[in-house]
Amino acid sequence: MKLVSYALEGVVRVGRLNAAGTAVQAFPGEAGSDMLHLIRRFAQIDNPDEDHGDWVALDRIQLLAPIPRPARNILCVGKNYHQHAVEFQASGFDASASENTPEFPVIFTKAPSSVIGPEMAIPAYLDYSESTDYEGELAVVIGRGGRNIAKADALTHVFGYTIVNDVTSRTLQQTHRQWFLGKSLDGYCPMGPAIVTADEIPAPEQLQLKTWVNGELRQHAGVADLIFDIPTLIETISRTMSLESGDIIATGTCAGVGIGFTPPRFLRHGDRVEIEIQPIGRLVNPVLALRE
Amino acid sequence: MKLVSYALEGVVRVGRLNAAGTAVQAFPGEAGSDMLHLIRRFAQIDNPDEDHGDWVALDRIQLLAPIPRPARNILCVGKNYHQHAVEFQASGFDASASENTPEFPVIFTKAPSSVIGPEMAIPAYLDYSESTDYEGELAVVIGRGGRNIAKADALTHVFGYTIVNDVTSRTLQQTHRQWFLGKSLDGYCPMGPAIVTADEIPAPEQLQLKTWVNGELRQHAGVADLIFDIPTLIETISRTMSLESGDIIATGTCAGVGIGFTPPRFLRHGDRVEIEIQPIGRLVNPVLALRE
Repeated sequence: MKLVSYALEGVVRVGRLNAAGTAVQAFPGEAGSDMLHLIRRFAQIDNPDEDHGDWVALDRIQLLAPIPRPARNILCVGKNYHQHAVEFQASGFDASASENTPEFPVIFTKAPSSVIGPEMAIPAYLDYSESTDYEGELAVVIGRGGRNIAKADALTHVFGYTIVNDVTSRTLQQTHRQWFLGKSLDGYCPMGPAIVTADEIPAPEQLQLKTWVNGELRQHAGVADLIFDIPTLIETISRTMSLESGDIIATGTCAGVGIGFTPPRFLRHGDRVEIEIQPIGRLVNPVLALRE
Repeated sequence: MKLVSYALEGVVRVGRLNAAGTAVQAFPGEAGSDMLHLIRRFAQIDNPDEDHGDWVALDRIQLLAPIPRPARNILCVGKNYHQHAVEFQASGFDASASENTPEFPVIFTKAPSSVIGPEMAIPAYLDYSESTDYEGELAVVIGRGGRNIAKADALTHVFGYTIVNDVTSRTLQQTHRQWFLGKSLDGYCPMGPAIVTADEIPAPEQLQLKTWVNGELRQHAGVADLIFDIPTLIETISRTMSLESGDIIATGTCAGVGIGFTPPRFLRHGDRVEIEIQPIGRLVNPVLALRE
């Protein structure tokens, strides 16, 4: 099932997309009011995919981030594709370590206030250092929380998958040493367009991630190339802190970000960033910046 | 005013302490149900310190963290006292930078799920690396949120002050490069015992911070020694992300943490950590660990 949050006549609703992706149907009652609510109660809903007929055409709604306001910061993984770890190290923007490939997962967070939805503008004008970069990522949405989740059980704790653009001010990421601030500017976490439930993606390692800027393919990798795969991330994180229903883990970006170029190709006014992971869809966001 | 969250007969309430600190009076109505709610509405309450007579003795209640579940991760500042920056660097546990004193504030986060209240046990047994350390800190609670808050206006955005113990697994902090995981184990953020409203602390730089372990004074510094003072922190953070009502900024710890000793003096089973900042009070937590 492909789940979306959306606004219809000023009211936020949660629903599912039809197979063609042309219409949406709200979940009835309280389950349809909030995605976090739906995720926490999903197992208790009888026939979640029952068709009760009220389909609304996509052009009548505004899609929002599937989880417009996470209940705590988004968990993110740094340097989790080998070629990206190399390009990041070579760029000189990594103040966190001297080695290319981390021995243990590098975990940091993005503020919940950074989340924006599909087609919403990335406000790169907020970055006075003018070094805003894109990072296309597969994100895991936790269904059933827990502590000490073993790798073998990890995927049973996944509710579904979505796409995140881990937009980053490279200069702020570097000068503040810890990455949080440079990753948490308002609007620096586009998310969506949908959450695809885990039953439809039994093998996430087979997914392909592609990012375009203004139609030019910049990133392309298979999730199979993750240094620390999804079960390892869930095991590692839940060994120190309890994972909770609705937690989002952005699994890391692959090679091809702006700082991978010489000179760096930071986002500029009017740019259009598109990230595609099928069957989740394509997350598209324009950029508002100080310079073209 | 000294505000506390507490449980009375299984119900969580928000109230104020009397001057002697022996009794608590709940705020009437919805304002008394949740501290985040109270903070957001405080300016609208008529006569918040009106005495309506219902005082409950402190021995009948259980004090909780003033904000038992923050709405997003706690904002924390690293290496913000010079002598601590030196001891941390010398310990070899800092994977984030090669210099002692940061040129810009180092900002990271702790998960909201790490918050515990006064007298609750720090579950150091969760740290399989057995390298759990204390960090006494003054914490700022934001009242009115905002973006681009200038230093000169910063203190008008402060609702009040509390104490935080930024408990840290030093090994996890180091091996994961970014500090979030080693700082976010369940129960690794004791907070309290109260929030003192900003009107009672017009000059936070005059506060004194002391930490004892088993009665031995380990940390003692004046908030005046902060490398980046509170207005600078608020200006810096709000220049990249909007601060929100109820946000908590833990301003950093001073010299005297366990890794400052040779060999390091990590927390052990049965230890008792006490952090005092008057007039906020004293935050006391016992330690549950694998070894004595």
